[in-house]
Amino acid sequence: MDPIRIGIVGMGKIARDQHLPAIRGDAAFSLAATVSPVADQGVAGVPHLPSLDALLAHGPAVDAVALCTPPQVRYDLAAQALARGIHVFLEKPPGATLAEVDALEAHAAKTGASLFAAWHSRFAAGVAPARAWLAERQIERVSIVWREDVRVWHPGQAWIWEPGGLGVFDPGINALSIATHILPRPFFLRAGTLAIPANRAAPIAADLSFRDTAGTEIHMDLDWRQTGAQSWDIIVETDAGTCKLSRGGAVLTLPSGAEHNEDREYPGLYARFATLIHSGRSDVDTSPLKLVADAFLRARRDTVEPFND
Amino acid sequence: MDPIRIGIVGMGKIARDQHLPAIRGDAAFSLAATVSPVADQGVAGVPHLPSLDALLAHGPAVDAVALCTPPQVRYDLAAQALARGIHVFLEKPPGATLAEVDALEAHAAKTGASLFAAWHSRFAAGVAPARAWLAERQIERVSIVWREDVRVWHPGQAWIWEPGGLGVFDPGINALSIATHILPRPFFLRAGTLAIPANRAAPIAADLSFRDTAGTEIHMDLDWRQTGAQSWDIIVETDAGTCKLSRGGAVLTLPSGAEHNEDREYPGLYARFATLIHSGRSDVDTSPLKLVADAFLRARRDTVEPFND
Repeated sequence: MDPIRIGIVGMGKIARDQHLPAIRGDAAFSLAATVSPVADQGVAGVPHLPSLDALLAHGPAVDAVALCTPPQVRYDLAAQALARGIHVFLEKPPGATLAEVDALEAHAAKTGASLFAAWHSRFAAGVAPARAWLAERQIERVSIVWREDVRVWHPGQAWIWEPGGLGVFDPGINALSIATHILPRPFFLRAGTLAIPANRAAPIAADLSFRDTAGTEIHMDLDWRQTGAQSWDIIVETDAGTCKLSRGGAVLTLPSGAEHNEDREYPGLYARFATLIHSGRSDVDTSPLKLVADAFLRARRDTVEPFND
Repeated sequence: MDPIRIGIVGMGKIARDQHLPAIRGDAAFSLAATVSPVADQGVAGVPHLPSLDALLAHGPAVDAVALCTPPQVRYDLAAQALARGIHVFLEKPPGATLAEVDALEAHAAKTGASLFAAWHSRFAAGVAPARAWLAERQIERVSIVWREDVRVWHPGQAWIWEPGGLGVFDPGINALSIATHILPRPFFLRAGTLAIPANRAAPIAADLSFRDTAGTEIHMDLDWRQTGAQSWDIIVETDAGTCKLSRGGAVLTLPSGAEHNEDREYPGLYARFATLIHSGRSDVDTSPLKLVADAFLRARRDTVEPFND
């Protein structure tokens, strides 16, 4: 089978750190082009275009694109690609709104192109075994603690604080993508508080109380003001002991001991994308974004001190 | 066929003004009970219970319930009823979050009970003919203007200003339930502003720019500070002239003239609910609530002067 010729659109940190090496490491793909208005963000030996328009008009042919731009501009790019039957990989979050992602999914269904709403944390090493282990257990309580230093992880990313950027839910949605995948029952927000800096549009911290359909409490503590040790932990207490996913899902600790496997998040995503393309399917699960939208809809907002980079 | 024995839970303004007369006017239903913690909110000759718990434990048997409580408490009531196979009519909005409505839909599918997320404005007299007329036209621009005086329509309703209450989207979601029904293509939010009173959690006004999948602009102007003449209008400009729905969908004006038909919103809803029950189906369209959640997620927020009843 010929490799899938793919273009990367948006050559920021995530594209360079994760997408480039994953595409180069997967024989199912060949990197056909990179796209960014910044001329020196290209890659040696690969055509670099200033826009998706330019790529589609006179760039090399592509079968697929990976959209790594901020979510606020992603719909137009995705719709443009899908209209030409080009398969689309959406970085998380898949869009700035739920309705636009629904519209893209309907669009893909019409054109026959594959649309993949990627949730990279679901491919962290500990997630699949945690899901399998939890499927047979009685869940008693869940605690999600995602505390990191925004100055380290998102330096100067102004878009993340704008309307349509998610603030602390940019990392928090990773936790929700794992939780919606490993917990056996759906859950929904009961109450919560968002802490919004006085000079920003998006939350810097959130305290959320979810409940699943069996009444199990799921607590989520998100904070971007954490200095020193960072936490990306999901702790699930069950009738058979505690299941702890730490380091964003990379490390799984069960009552029987810890498993620590190699990071395969982006290679896992691209393997999945290739499978979707070869089988003519899409995979668009908006449940993590839905929980975030519910938090913006339902939680109380407190104004907190201004945040400056 | 025996009438469906129905209980009304939550005996506020909408229950008395709309649900009671619609149920009494529909031979497919018989009013079996009313539920409210307020003792004198009952109806002569009909058993009155203080809670759904009490109704289910020792009230008269019911086949269905209509939930007219504030959305913040609706999930638990609906889940409790569905678990016993009781059909559930959800007043709009169907819940305080999207995820809880999804969970209820899955729950109904398991128990075989019918779940109906009711959007009363879709049954306004002008809506069905507007939808039919628009299906054959090229849409050029849409303007939604929903301006009313909150002091007249929601006097002292504190819950509507709380997190999980929708503020001005409580009427605005009616407009969205019509627009999602009459416009031929899905649409989604591009940008917007919510005006939030300094002493409240929910917006008193909103200015929203949507776009449909063909690029058509849809503008929405919601304001609860309107005194004097009230507006509940949707104006759709097309290649064949203007379609105007006014008075919340009751009056349709086409280039050929105006139609003004009898108000049949709640009788229409109950006829639909009976059909769903008799055919063993549910009808849970969350698209209007999704657009509201998207507005909370995506729009900019401005603080405006405090609002006091």
